[in-house]
Amino acid sequence: MRIALDAMGGDHAPGPIVAGAVQAVAADPELRVVLVGDQAQVEPLLAGAAGRDRLELFHCTQVVGMDEAAVVALRKKPDNSISRCWQLLAQRKVDGIVSAGNTGAMVAGGLFLKRFLKNVRRPGIAAFMPTLRGPCVLIDVGANISPKAENLFQYGVMGSIFVKHILQRPSPTIGLMNVGSEEQKGHDLAKETHALFNASSLKDQFVGNIEGRDINRGTADVIVTEGFVGNVVLKTAEGVFEFIIKMATKELLAALDTEKAKAQQALQNLVSRYDYSEFGGAPLLGIDGICIICHGSSGDRAIKNALGVAAQYARSKLNELIEQELAKSPVPDDGN
Amino acid sequence: MRIALDAMGGDHAPGPIVAGAVQAVAADPELRVVLVGDQAQVEPLLAGAAGRDRLELFHCTQVVGMDEAAVVALRKKPDNSISRCWQLLAQRKVDGIVSAGNTGAMVAGGLFLKRFLKNVRRPGIAAFMPTLRGPCVLIDVGANISPKAENLFQYGVMGSIFVKHILQRPSPTIGLMNVGSEEQKGHDLAKETHALFNASSLKDQFVGNIEGRDINRGTADVIVTEGFVGNVVLKTAEGVFEFIIKMATKELLAALDTEKAKAQQALQNLVSRYDYSEFGGAPLLGIDGICIICHGSSGDRAIKNALGVAAQYARSKLNELIEQELAKSPVPDDGN
Repeated sequence: MRIALDAMGGDHAPGPIVAGAVQAVAADPELRVVLVGDQAQVEPLLAGAAGRDRLELFHCTQVVGMDEAAVVALRKKPDNSISRCWQLLAQRKVDGIVSAGNTGAMVAGGLFLKRFLKNVRRPGIAAFMPTLRGPCVLIDVGANISPKAENLFQYGVMGSIFVKHILQRPSPTIGLMNVGSEEQKGHDLAKETHALFNASSLKDQFVGNIEGRDINRGTADVIVTEGFVGNVVLKTAEGVFEFIIKMATKELLAALDTEKAKAQQALQNLVSRYDYSEFGGAPLLGIDGICIICHGSSGDRAIKNALGVAAQYARSKLNELIEQELAKSPVPDDGN
Repeated sequence: MRIALDAMGGDHAPGPIVAGAVQAVAADPELRVVLVGDQAQVEPLLAGAAGRDRLELFHCTQVVGMDEAAVVALRKKPDNSISRCWQLLAQRKVDGIVSAGNTGAMVAGGLFLKRFLKNVRRPGIAAFMPTLRGPCVLIDVGANISPKAENLFQYGVMGSIFVKHILQRPSPTIGLMNVGSEEQKGHDLAKETHALFNASSLKDQFVGNIEGRDINRGTADVIVTEGFVGNVVLKTAEGVFEFIIKMATKELLAALDTEKAKAQQALQNLVSRYDYSEFGGAPLLGIDGICIICHGSSGDRAIKNALGVAAQYARSKLNELIEQELAKSPVPDDGN
């Protein structure tokens, strides 16, 4: 299988991005990676790489900046690496694409092409979150800021298939992010979504409303929410994590005498294990193909993991399963 | 000054609630507390308390359960301690009320009375959040699930006055919770709110959009958001905090040899310092009077702190300042 990798996307590109690709092909003999980016910068990084014959190069001259307004940038820079990735996918020259570049541009690139899976109304981004019982998935974290209930319902269907096959959980539970656990809680969108799940074939997987503090307890394998809330939640969790590790380090260094270094190392291990950039990226579920969006700060390990998730996604034929499941659970026609 | 305290509200009531009142009157010679609750349970807890003459009792026979549906409970239990607190406030027999009971019932009790400050459209709950630069305030965390832009704007005005006088920050900054820092980001509500701030006399305090990861960095003193998002953010932050402390404890106990106990104590200190229940409760801003809502798990220290915030609120005449400021910043008429 062949995955296109945006070699120019990310805070530290292209160095760790290319390194991640080299590690990924070394780990998976069936994987081919097409590095999309500036040949002059990328090619030297491949010198002497094991599996060099499965690392291809697709030259392009432009890059969307990490903070550029996405839609404007895509229009003004036709030869940018993100658009080139999407084009390779649309032409079926690759099975999937991976980027740690501008998230808005990655999503906009996909929405422009409008190549959604059959029966999918709107794609959503599924992000991994750490819990006491292994990772769960939060969907959507920003592809669709103001969705309808049927979008949230479809996120539940897609997220559940993703978790089942990527995290190997036979019957993933689905929770709806809300402000209280009682059924009548929340805004109209939450109430309508609640009703859709309860009337669907996913009824038995649906555990109802969950609250913010339930996320890390592992109360649900898939947590469904609107893109605005999901985005804020994901970044809040990152921020709290960063804050507490900083405060705990300070506190421990002041309190300990002989085991300061060991304590620092222990916290560092915790950070590596739960670092949001290390889960292998967030898939944009619902598009016809595979699209994995990585954290801007991704290092080589995150890129390697993301390519691994893309490969596993392709092998499990997740998109066929999503289409089949959605055909079983039609949502009301919204006229779009 | 006289504050009514819901002696029956909270996971551990009435024990630590009454203890908090005893500590508060001991610390503040001008404070009188009216303990609202079951006389048979409360009175014995007051035996021998210093400042007993400033601890009054208001007997009532009913309690709203922590997980009861608020509106139904208030209707079915007319002699419940939360309604009695609100009535004492409405009759101006007390300057303020404090409860660690059912949050929904506290808010609903206030909305029923509809005694808002002049020019206030809707009250909002302001919750303290820890940051690297001392606490900030997040408003609204659940009083108004689906607000309009003018409500969010007024939350900024009220939150800023609260922070200025309670946290002693001469010119508090105000940020709008959003999914990106650029002005054009977010849903319609965010864009409209952004425009209202920029056209107002608070323009210079307004730092624009902030993201979830900025909260704990102390990027803004006041963070404005809709009740749905604020509630989810607050509870997510609590959950991540709990999760990381648990994981860090485990990691440190495994990694250290001789200083395990010191490390555990250090983390415990961190928890006490940043525990969300220890900030002294969340004011419901915009009502005519003072209303402080405490975390259900509040212990005596949290209750003491909340009574302290209520007293400082009364002394600073914050509600007069809020009315004056809102008169300077009229919002479009919404027909309500």
